[in-house]
Amino acid sequence: MLTDVQGRKSLNGFKLTRVGVTDVKKQVTVQRDYGSSCLNCVIDIFVDLPSTQRGSHLSRNLEVIAEVLEMSVSRPVSGLEALAGDICQMLFERHEYASYAEVNIAADYFLDRSGPSGRISKEPFKLMAKASGKRGKGMRKMIGAQAIGMTACPCAMETIRDSVKGNVSFQGDFPVISHNQRNVSTLMIEVPGRFEVEANDLIDILEQSFSSPTFEILKRSDEATVVINAHRNPKFVEDVVRDILTKVLEKYQDLPDEVEVTVRSESQESIHKHNAFAERVTSLKELRE
Amino acid sequence: MLTDVQGRKSLNGFKLTRVGVTDVKKQVTVQRDYGSSCLNCVIDIFVDLPSTQRGSHLSRNLEVIAEVLEMSVSRPVSGLEALAGDICQMLFERHEYASYAEVNIAADYFLDRSGPSGRISKEPFKLMAKASGKRGKGMRKMIGAQAIGMTACPCAMETIRDSVKGNVSFQGDFPVISHNQRNVSTLMIEVPGRFEVEANDLIDILEQSFSSPTFEILKRSDEATVVINAHRNPKFVEDVVRDILTKVLEKYQDLPDEVEVTVRSESQESIHKHNAFAERVTSLKELRE
Amino acid sequence: MLTDVQGRKSLNGFKLTRVGVTDVKKQVTVQRDYGSSCLNCVIDIFVDLPSTQRGSHLSRNLEVIAEVLEMSVSRPVSGLEALAGDICQMLFERHEYASYAEVNIAADYFLDRSGPSGRISKEPFKLMAKASGKRGKGMRKMIGAQAIGMTACPCAMETIRDSVKGNVSFQGDFPVISHNQRNVSTLMIEVPGRFEVEANDLIDILEQSFSSPTFEILKRSDEATVVINAHRNPKFVEDVVRDILTKVLEKYQDLPDEVEVTVRSESQESIHKHNAFAERVTSLKELRE
Amino acid sequence: MLTDVQGRKSLNGFKLTRVGVTDVKKQVTVQRDYGSSCLNCVIDIFVDLPSTQRGSHLSRNLEVIAEVLEMSVSRPVSGLEALAGDICQMLFERHEYASYAEVNIAADYFLDRSGPSGRISKEPFKLMAKASGKRGKGMRKMIGAQAIGMTACPCAMETIRDSVKGNVSFQGDFPVISHNQRNVSTLMIEVPGRFEVEANDLIDILEQSFSSPTFEILKRSDEATVVINAHRNPKFVEDVVRDILTKVLEKYQDLPDEVEVTVRSESQESIHKHNAFAERVTSLKELRE
Repeated sequence: MLTDVQGRKSLNGFKLTRVGVTDVKKQVTVQRDYGSSCLNCVIDIFVDLPSTQRGSHLSRNLEVIAEVLEMSVSRPVSGLEALAGDICQMLFERHEYASYAEVNIAADYFLDRSGPSGRISKEPFKLMAKASGKRGKGMRKMIGAQAIGMTACPCAMETIRDSVKGNVSFQGDFPVISHNQRNVSTLMIEVPGRFEVEANDLIDILEQSFSSPTFEILKRSDEATVVINAHRNPKFVEDVVRDILTKVLEKYQDLPDEVEVTVRSESQESIHKHNAFAERVTSLKELRE
Repeated sequence: MLTDVQGRKSLNGFKLTRVGVTDVKKQVTVQRDYGSSCLNCVIDIFVDLPSTQRGSHLSRNLEVIAEVLEMSVSRPVSGLEALAGDICQMLFERHEYASYAEVNIAADYFLDRSGPSGRISKEPFKLMAKASGKRGKGMRKMIGAQAIGMTACPCAMETIRDSVKGNVSFQGDFPVISHNQRNVSTLMIEVPGRFEVEANDLIDILEQSFSSPTFEILKRSDEATVVINAHRNPKFVEDVVRDILTKVLEKYQDLPDEVEVTVRSESQESIHKHNAFAERVTSLKELRE
Repeated sequence: MLTDVQGRKSLNGFKLTRVGVTDVKKQVTVQRDYGSSCLNCVIDIFVDLPSTQRGSHLSRNLEVIAEVLEMSVSRPVSGLEALAGDICQMLFERHEYASYAEVNIAADYFLDRSGPSGRISKEPFKLMAKASGKRGKGMRKMIGAQAIGMTACPCAMETIRDSVKGNVSFQGDFPVISHNQRNVSTLMIEVPGRFEVEANDLIDILEQSFSSPTFEILKRSDEATVVINAHRNPKFVEDVVRDILTKVLEKYQDLPDEVEVTVRSESQESIHKHNAFAERVTSLKELRE
Repeated sequence: MLTDVQGRKSLNGFKLTRVGVTDVKKQVTVQRDYGSSCLNCVIDIFVDLPSTQRGSHLSRNLEVIAEVLEMSVSRPVSGLEALAGDICQMLFERHEYASYAEVNIAADYFLDRSGPSGRISKEPFKLMAKASGKRGKGMRKMIGAQAIGMTACPCAMETIRDSVKGNVSFQGDFPVISHNQRNVSTLMIEVPGRFEVEANDLIDILEQSFSSPTFEILKRSDEATVVINAHRNPKFVEDVVRDILTKVLEKYQDLPDEVEVTVRSESQESIHKHNAFAERVTSLKELRE
C-alpha cells in the first residue's frame, strides 16, 4: 500500500490559509437562455490545511474540476459562478480536513454588439467568477465581467475650452478637443443563493459607463460618431466607477443589502506613460445609504 | 483662473475606496549599511475620495513621488518600505480630502550569491514594499522579497522508493528520483515604527526554505551538488511556506505580536501544466500561539 | 463625400513593409474529420503599403476577418492555416494597392490525452498558423502547435551516476536523480497547396519528443510512472529539437523539399533562474540531405 | 574525470540553428560622455551547434556574460551594442564548435525630459541591442530604443471637421476633436565597426515623431498644451514610421548604405480593442534611393 505522504503529521505545526493549484486551463460550455457559450477558462482552486497535516491532496482538486465538467455534459452549467460554486462544494467533500474552500475562474468571452450605424460585430470581453466559504457556513458566489471602452478627459477639455475662448470662434455646444484613451473596467457582484445575475447585464452596465463603448469595425462616419459621442460624454475614471455603481443600484434593487460589489476602472492614459485608476469595494447596503 | 474640475461637487455621491495612478516607473537608489543599490521600481499610489468631490488630483501623486525622490538625493532612502512610507505621508499633505493613502512598490534586485563550490554570481530577485493607513491613525509599512528556487517532490520520491524496493539494489540513504521544478516564493512582513527589517534577510530566509537555491553558473560538479542537495531535502509547496514561517519566528523574535506576515510559494510543476500553490496570511501573534 | 485621408499621396515617399492590425480576438469553429473545435484566436494581419499612399485602410482588415468567419458558418473552416489563407487571399482583393499580405493566428486548444494508467484528461495546447505571400506569386501557409512537457537532464544524471559510483550500491539500470523541469516546445511546418497537415499530429510529435508528456491528473502510481519514464529518457533541449525533426522527416515523407520547418524548445530550468533554448529553422530539403 | 555529455557525438545528425540561454537578468553600468546609467538587462545568447555534437555547453554562456561584466568594472561599457558585441566575440572563443553567435539585450532606461512649461521629469524608455555574426565573417551590431508617445488620428479629425462644417461655427485653424491614444514605437539601427550611434538620439527621433511626446507630470495648462500639440499634429502609425525614417536619413548621413534599419509603431487604439501597427524593415541604401 502506498504511503500517504501528504496525509502525514505536519512537522512544524502551522496551518495554511490556502493550498491548491493555479493556472488550470479548461474549456467549458455554459448554457444560458439566449444560447450556449464556449468558454476557455483559467481556474485557481484552494482549500486550507490544518496544522496537523503535511500536505493537501492536490490531485483531488483536478479530479473535482474534471467531475464537475463531466456532469455538465448532461446537466449544462448555467454560469461561471454556478460552476465555481459546484467545484467549491465538492472540494469540501474530497478534502475532509478543509474548513475553507475557494475557486476563482476567468474566461474570454464574446458578445454581439451593434455599432453606431447598426452594424453587428463580435466584441471580446472577459468573465470572472469566484466561490468561497467556510465549511457549513454557506458559500459566497460572485460573478463579474471586464470590458474595454474609451474615456475622454473632462478636465483637459474644460481647460482648453477656457483657454481658447475669445481667440477662436466658439463652436456652440460642440465639444472641444481633449485626450482620450483605452479604458479597462471591471464589475464583480455577489449572487446570493436564490438570485440570478446575468453576466451580459454586467457587460451592458460597463459599456454604458464609458465615455463610449468601442467597436471592431468602424467605417468613416461610424468612427466620427464614436469620437463625437465620447467627447460629448467626457469622464474621469472616478466618473466611470460611480456611473457603474449607479447602474448597479438601479438594476439590482431586488438583491439584498449584504451583497458585495467591486468596481474598478483603469485608463491607459494617452498623455502619460502610466495609468489612472479608481476603485470601490463595497456592499449594496453601503451604496443604498 | 482655471476651473478645478476635479475639485467639483460629485454628481452622484459615492465615495471611492482607492483612486490613483498605477505602473509608474522610477529608478531609485537605496542606501544600506552594506552599500547602495540601484532599483528599477514600479509604483502604484492611491488615496480615497469623498463622495462630495468629483475627482482626485492625480498629478499630485506624481509630484509627491518626484519630490520624495529628489529629497533622497541629499538624504538617501534606507529601504523601499521607508520610501513607500515617505510617499504615503506626503499624500495626506497634498490630498487634503483624503482619509486613506496607499503606496505599493515592486523592484528588480540583484545580490551576490555563493554557489556550491564558492563561486560568486549575481542572482536576480524582486523586492516589494507597501505603506498604507488612515489619516491620523498611523501607517502600516511592509517590506517583502520574492526569490526563485527549486523544489523536489517528497511524494513521488517516496512512491518510487517503495515501488522499486526489492527490484533494484537499494542505494542506502542516497535519494531516489523525483520530479523537481522551478519555485517562486514570496515573503512580506510588517515593519513597525521603530524596528528595522533587512530585505536581504528575507531573501536568505526564502532561499534556505527551498529544496535548494538555484544559481546562474553551475559547472558539472556544482550542478550535481545542487541536484543532490535538492533531492536530500524534498519539499512540497506547503513545506516551503511552513519553513519560511519557522525561520520568520526565529529571526524576528523582537518584533511585536501585531506584525502581519504573508508567505506564498508556487511551484511550476514539471509533471503538470498547472502550478502548485500554498499561502499563509497571518500575524506573528497567531504564529507564536 | 468623405475625403479618403488614407488614400492620399504620401508626404515623404517611403513604402512600408507591413501595416495592419494586431491583437484582434475572435472565436472560430474549426471542423475536422474527428469533430469540431471551438478556438479562441488572436489574429494579426498586415499588408504592405506603397510609398505613394499615406495610409492603409485598416477597417478593411477587420471586415475581411468578419466576412471570412461569416462564410465559415455555412462552409466550415478545416483548419487555422486554411482560415489564415482565406483571410490572406481576401486581403489582396480589398487592398488593391498591396503587393504583400500576411496573417498570423494563435489559439488555445484542448485535446484528450491518456495518462499512464489510461485515465483520459483534457490537456491544454496552443495552435499557430501563418499565411503570407506576394500578390500573384502564390501563398505560403504554415500550421504549428505548442505543447508543454517535461525534460530530465542527461548531463546531471551522468555526473551524479559517476560521482556516487562506489560510495552507494548501484541501482542496476534504474535511473539516478537529475534535475527536471517544464519545457515548452513548438513545431511549425509549411502546408503546400494540395497537401494537408493535421495539427493533432504535430502535438503528437511534440509530446513524444519530451522526456515525458505531462498530465493534469496523476494519482500516486501514475506520478511515479511519469517520473520514471522521464528519467529513463533524459533529454537536453537540443535532443528535444532533434527528435522532433526526426519524427517530422518520418511523418511527412510525401511533403516536397521546399517545405519550411521551424522547431523550438525551451526548458524553464529548475536549477537556474534562466531558460535553456534550442531552435532549428530549416527546410525538408536540408533535413533530408 | 567527468564525462563531457554535451561534447558527445550527436545521435541523429541534425545541426541546430541557435542553442543557448534566455531570460538572463543582469545589472550593467554603461558609461557615456554625459554620465553613467544603471541598466537592468534581460539577455538572450545563442550559438549554433554542428550536427556532430550532442549539446552546447550552456554554462559557458553564463561565464562569458559574467567575465564581460567583470571586465566592464575596470573598462566601462560604452553602450549596450558594445556589450552585446563583446559577449558575441567571446562566445566564439569559448564555443570552439560554433560558426554563428547571437546576443540580444533589452533594458529599462530613464531619461530627463522637459515638459511644455520646462519642468523636468524622468521618463521611462527601453533600450535594445543585438550582436550577431558568422565566425570570421565580421559581426553585425545594432542599437535600438523604444518610446511611448501619443498619436491623434488625422482621419477621424477630418471626417468630423467635414461633417460639422456649416452646423457649428468653425474654429479657424484650431483642431477639432479626434481619437488619440498611447503609441509604442521602436527604432533599431545597425552600428558598423568604426561608427557610433547614441541611443539617446534614437529616443529623440522617436519622441519627435509622435503626435506628441508624453510626460509624467502635467499640470492643467501643460496638459492642455500637450493635447493641443497632438491635435495640431495628427498622425497615423504609418506617418509615425515614415517620420522616424525621414529623421534617420537626416541624422545618419555618414552611415554607409548597408546599414540595416527597423522601425515599428503600434497604437493602442482608443476606439478599438485591437491595435494599429506599421513597420519598415530596410537598409539606408533602400531609404536613400
